[in-house]
Amino acid sequence: MEKNKNISQLGEKGLIKLLSHIFSNWPSDLVYGAGLDDCAVIKINDHKYLVTTTDMLHRTTDFPIQMTPWQIGWMAVAVNLSDIASMGANPIGVMMAIGLPKSTDVKFIEEMAKGMDDCAKKYNTAIIGGDIDTHDELTICGTALGIVDKKHLLSRKGAHVGDLLCVTGYVGLAGAGLYALENSILTYENVIKALLEPQPRINESMKLAKTGYVTSMIDTSDGIAISLHILKEASNVGFLINEDNLPIKDELRQLFSDKETIKSMALYTGGDFELIFTVRPEGIEDILEIGNISIIGKVVSVDNGILIKNSSGFAMSVEHKGYEQLKV
Amino acid sequence: MEKNKNISQLGEKGLIKLLSHIFSNWPSDLVYGAGLDDCAVIKINDHKYLVTTTDMLHRTTDFPIQMTPWQIGWMAVAVNLSDIASMGANPIGVMMAIGLPKSTDVKFIEEMAKGMDDCAKKYNTAIIGGDIDTHDELTICGTALGIVDKKHLLSRKGAHVGDLLCVTGYVGLAGAGLYALENSILTYENVIKALLEPQPRINESMKLAKTGYVTSMIDTSDGIAISLHILKEASNVGFLINEDNLPIKDELRQLFSDKETIKSMALYTGGDFELIFTVRPEGIEDILEIGNISIIGKVVSVDNGILIKNSSGFAMSVEHKGYEQLKV
Repeated sequence: MEKNKNISQLGEKGLIKLLSHIFSNWPSDLVYGAGLDDCAVIKINDHKYLVTTTDMLHRTTDFPIQMTPWQIGWMAVAVNLSDIASMGANPIGVMMAIGLPKSTDVKFIEEMAKGMDDCAKKYNTAIIGGDIDTHDELTICGTALGIVDKKHLLSRKGAHVGDLLCVTGYVGLAGAGLYALENSILTYENVIKALLEPQPRINESMKLAKTGYVTSMIDTSDGIAISLHILKEASNVGFLINEDNLPIKDELRQLFSDKETIKSMALYTGGDFELIFTVRPEGIEDILEIGNISIIGKVVSVDNGILIKNSSGFAMSVEHKGYEQLKV
Repeated sequence: MEKNKNISQLGEKGLIKLLSHIFSNWPSDLVYGAGLDDCAVIKINDHKYLVTTTDMLHRTTDFPIQMTPWQIGWMAVAVNLSDIASMGANPIGVMMAIGLPKSTDVKFIEEMAKGMDDCAKKYNTAIIGGDIDTHDELTICGTALGIVDKKHLLSRKGAHVGDLLCVTGYVGLAGAGLYALENSILTYENVIKALLEPQPRINESMKLAKTGYVTSMIDTSDGIAISLHILKEASNVGFLINEDNLPIKDELRQLFSDKETIKSMALYTGGDFELIFTVRPEGIEDILEIGNISIIGKVVSVDNGILIKNSSGFAMSVEHKGYEQLKV
């Protein structure tokens, strides 16, 4: 290791690689561990896996300034449930460790806790524990737990050439919300809510997993470009996206004047917490019946990389960019 | 709720009460939840419980300035494993969410990660996942998971009048270490190590739980006075401690000139991460065979409160004080 290098210079990927190397002492009942998937996966018996994930959020970097305390609480739970969703699991509990400035109003924490509780309740789970201490900046570290049948576990690995590429909901909507907020542009409530009150796809995820046709899955929290690059690396495949099939809301199209900007918003902005996944073609009808799902492309050989083509057939590479913590 | 009250005024207990009230939507498979015990306990099948705990630590408030990066990593894992130990459970994995200042040296994080890994390894578990992001102050939020047979689960509830009160290891040793560091007093390495490299009592805990004679248990991380007050409230009993039976190291006695100060250090300083527990009298021989355990008193009626008596028979009340986050 080079001396006196700091973590900004190393970058998030380099840091995760370093830590994954140190944390390599895995017990035999660990199916996936540190850095390899959205969740760690532990075998608890011959048929069931426990999936678990943790996520630390800070007031200034993770919560747009416009957020209400209720929305902060909601978001802190939603991001963790989204990771549980990306494994096809059923959430069984969420824990919230909270570092609060001493001057925090009791009303603020009360509203925030209600946001946490409401989000957990909506997805049929609960806040089952946590920790409270004082800290300069509001910091929330959530942990979510889920259970999944061994045969239904989904992960980033498993996409095959010929599979169809699908996404739930819409792409770029939260990014459009952030753009509108940052530039003080008035827009529709659903655009702002996409950013401030993300809906993790727990219910869709469990239905998807049970079909048996989904071959790989991840959430879109850092944008679909980053999600696809992660799937590419984990599954060793490429992707071809049809630009015309991207589920882009009219509200997003109204915010931007040109097609290129709209495409960029769709590919490279995060915060949507949808699921992006690959499906064996014979199962696509069952998958579409779940609802709120679009086919946006297909899995191709890894040599093709990740391409997006428009209606004229012109294809360009999808870059590896979006939201990455340490490089900001 | 009174308007504009802040959390310092409310205090940690008041805040936990408020949150426990909001987070009361418990699923049927939740055995214990938020704020009620060191861990949340979830039934995973008819015979096994999952126990889980989370703890957020900050550079300035939780890690003495003298700590090495390795010790910071060790401590972050140890505090979570100690909560698993207090339930009699076998750890199955630890997750570490880490907020790092951008300027952090790669060497620092490497050493810290080794400390985390070494602590997990020592207790036959592993770092199985986590999260990395940037933050002004080094903040580590650990989550530990454990499994325990339903019939071996220990908790704060269950002590009965007539049970014996026991503790593992020594009391006040970490507090003595902190005193020595803060006052630049040279002392023995084991005193400093008690503070900087606490050893969670995972192995003792599992042996204790399996005897079937332990009726309640908690760790001593905030000092035995606070631990006993928590057991008192949960089990609705009182305690009578024999001062002469407190396991106090000679190194601690050498640091202080008078008996009253030594007693205060033993009762009211935290950081020891030992286990304090109650035992049905007929099992005490089996318990003592485990080793490193002292009988320090007995369980009495709740009307007596918590008393400590010296060899002359003089008894005084054990106050409810020690280390409490929000009141510092």
